[in-house]
Amino acid sequence: MKIIDGGVTAPKGFLAAGTEAFIKYEHRPDMAMLYSQEPCIVAGTFTSNVVKAAPVIWDMKIVKENGMARAAVVNTGIANAGTGKEGMDICKAEAEHAAKVLGISKEEVLVGSTGVIGEQLDIDRLKAGISALASKLSDDREAARQASVAIMTTDTLNKEVAVTVEIGGKTVTVGGMSKGSGMIHPNMCTMLGYITTDINIDRGLLQKALSTDVKDTFNMITVDGDTSTNDTLLIFANGLAGNEKIVSEDEDYRKFCEALHYVNETLAKKMAGDGEGATKLVEVQVLGATTKENARILARSVAGSNLTKAAMYGNDSNFGRILCALGYSGVSFDPDRVDISYEAGGKRIEIFSKGVKADYDEAEATKLLDNKEVRIVADMHEGEQSAFAWGCDLTYDYVKINADYRS
Amino acid sequence: MKIIDGGVTAPKGFLAAGTEAFIKYEHRPDMAMLYSQEPCIVAGTFTSNVVKAAPVIWDMKIVKENGMARAAVVNTGIANAGTGKEGMDICKAEAEHAAKVLGISKEEVLVGSTGVIGEQLDIDRLKAGISALASKLSDDREAARQASVAIMTTDTLNKEVAVTVEIGGKTVTVGGMSKGSGMIHPNMCTMLGYITTDINIDRGLLQKALSTDVKDTFNMITVDGDTSTNDTLLIFANGLAGNEKIVSEDEDYRKFCEALHYVNETLAKKMAGDGEGATKLVEVQVLGATTKENARILARSVAGSNLTKAAMYGNDSNFGRILCALGYSGVSFDPDRVDISYEAGGKRIEIFSKGVKADYDEAEATKLLDNKEVRIVADMHEGEQSAFAWGCDLTYDYVKINADYRS
Repeated sequence: MKIIDGGVTAPKGFLAAGTEAFIKYEHRPDMAMLYSQEPCIVAGTFTSNVVKAAPVIWDMKIVKENGMARAAVVNTGIANAGTGKEGMDICKAEAEHAAKVLGISKEEVLVGSTGVIGEQLDIDRLKAGISALASKLSDDREAARQASVAIMTTDTLNKEVAVTVEIGGKTVTVGGMSKGSGMIHPNMCTMLGYITTDINIDRGLLQKALSTDVKDTFNMITVDGDTSTNDTLLIFANGLAGNEKIVSEDEDYRKFCEALHYVNETLAKKMAGDGEGATKLVEVQVLGATTKENARILARSVAGSNLTKAAMYGNDSNFGRILCALGYSGVSFDPDRVDISYEAGGKRIEIFSKGVKADYDEAEATKLLDNKEVRIVADMHEGEQSAFAWGCDLTYDYVKINADYRS
Repeated sequence: MKIIDGGVTAPKGFLAAGTEAFIKYEHRPDMAMLYSQEPCIVAGTFTSNVVKAAPVIWDMKIVKENGMARAAVVNTGIANAGTGKEGMDICKAEAEHAAKVLGISKEEVLVGSTGVIGEQLDIDRLKAGISALASKLSDDREAARQASVAIMTTDTLNKEVAVTVEIGGKTVTVGGMSKGSGMIHPNMCTMLGYITTDINIDRGLLQKALSTDVKDTFNMITVDGDTSTNDTLLIFANGLAGNEKIVSEDEDYRKFCEALHYVNETLAKKMAGDGEGATKLVEVQVLGATTKENARILARSVAGSNLTKAAMYGNDSNFGRILCALGYSGVSFDPDRVDISYEAGGKRIEIFSKGVKADYDEAEATKLLDNKEVRIVADMHEGEQSAFAWGCDLTYDYVKINADYRS
């Protein structure tokens, strides 16, 4: 596997664009389009929130019933959630207009929205945006970047990644883009994510690869514990790499899964590190859990703890909060076996050992925590399973951003 | 039932005291004692956190095995959690010293701690504090106040309440004190709470009354979603009111439960409203749920949502976050039936009606939210059950307090 500079246009046959459509705010790109020159199979995972945004309902139907698509249209500013029948009508009109300008059918158009809940989208602005996007579509590097910028909301950085992998003598490429950065919580984490690939693969296996990998990547990040109404992760595969079609869980499938995992994990970590108001990425590694699921639950509990997150912001080595978050996770364990340490900047400090405070220097711990990336390692000494979760610190800016998000 | 000015010394035969014992910080009272002139039956509820502080383990054993006690000793500053065997030895030494100075047995002494996790208590300071407290014990109003002040940590207000109720021709009194205000989350909410009463009642019924009521009071408050290692709620009943012993769930039992509910709910609301950094109490009422438990889950999900709490701080009528929090609670419902409104200062504004935004004035909503107490009402229109939950807003000060709690 090779990491390359690129995004959603890196795989063969994919075009993208971003534009300013004045959906809600001015002077910022707020619509993106993704288009494949060839029909694609698609797979997706969606929010577990009972309240599903209209575009989520639209996309779920297409992914489940057809499993084929060629384009995606995304807007920011307004989430098209809590919008009733009118919201569903907007999705349909959006898809119809995109289908018309792209010369495909409306059932091949996936739609996505993120932003304020409860407000209605203006279909005329959406249509103007779609027409502009269609005329700007390009397969170059810059087009992918523009699309990834146009889907940002409170994100401070655009999020892209691309890798290549040799499969059956052919070069297969996987590219992706995503946005955070509030309402971020596992299950399906709060986000929009678009992955493109030119691999030739069976649709059922594509969905399986995505659903399996999400458990250890996007569903392991948390910013604020709020699971959004709009979470959507889609993968498009157009087959243009020309590899022999993958139809079983063989070595080729395994190679593809590895590439997909790198793409997903990279985007997930970028989202966690760019959580609203965050100053650092906090990686939590749980070792020695009895089951994989227990390891995930423990890791997420620590990554999601407001008190731990606030301590990380203050570079305060308050390991009690980590221990406490492990304890209320719902997983049973013996506190007297637990070891906890911090890792950052190539250094490691053990702060808690076999149920009691370890002998460490507070000033050194504070210095170590003052890094842009900090890893908390908790070894439960109960079994052999491990997991990673990713979060960020809780800062004044998180409160500031969210105390008056809509203004 | 009559609400009276008082605290834990309001019922007959209860003495209290608070003192400065230099446990961790200077110039603040940090130890409290509660003492009954007569033996008491006791009942309690404790943290559900797997990591239980040493005093929680000590108290659970006494409440479960003996069900009798006469004194409680509490310190702040250090939580005596994550302290291993040494922490348990401290509890024993504490109880032994209190027993000696009070002339009772160590099995009649309950101990409580709150503060930093992982540090060891200094037994000499504890002993000096206990001796000082024993000499200051008094049954007057001021002694109760001093005890309630001495158990405060980041609380900005002490929390007391007392009521009387006529049972079988006798006046029964119930008094209480509690402290918050971080690591506050249902199940058993993070807190220390001490209730005293002179009622004459069967021990099993006392425990049942407490355990039942906690579900709708202390377990319905949330400040930050972090369930502490030290949560303890204890009730002492010494029988001095002289009522005929309550031995069944009769009318007398019902009257007592009502008084206890008022005491618990009052303390719980005071804790939520005084959450770390909070500027307002946020009461969430869920109506029309299919089951009582579903109503509780929905109400807690809204009260615990970081995004909703940040919006409350900014007086931002961002109902989408409320809808979103209902949606990810785990309870299934039809979003198109949901109504949401705000109530404060005697006014009411409907903001969401049958799945879409209601026609309301943003400026009026902002004005209404700018109150010290705000109620969010969500009517699910699915059934007949309802519940309250209490929380607070998420502010800069919460982050400030917790980014460097230990310094």
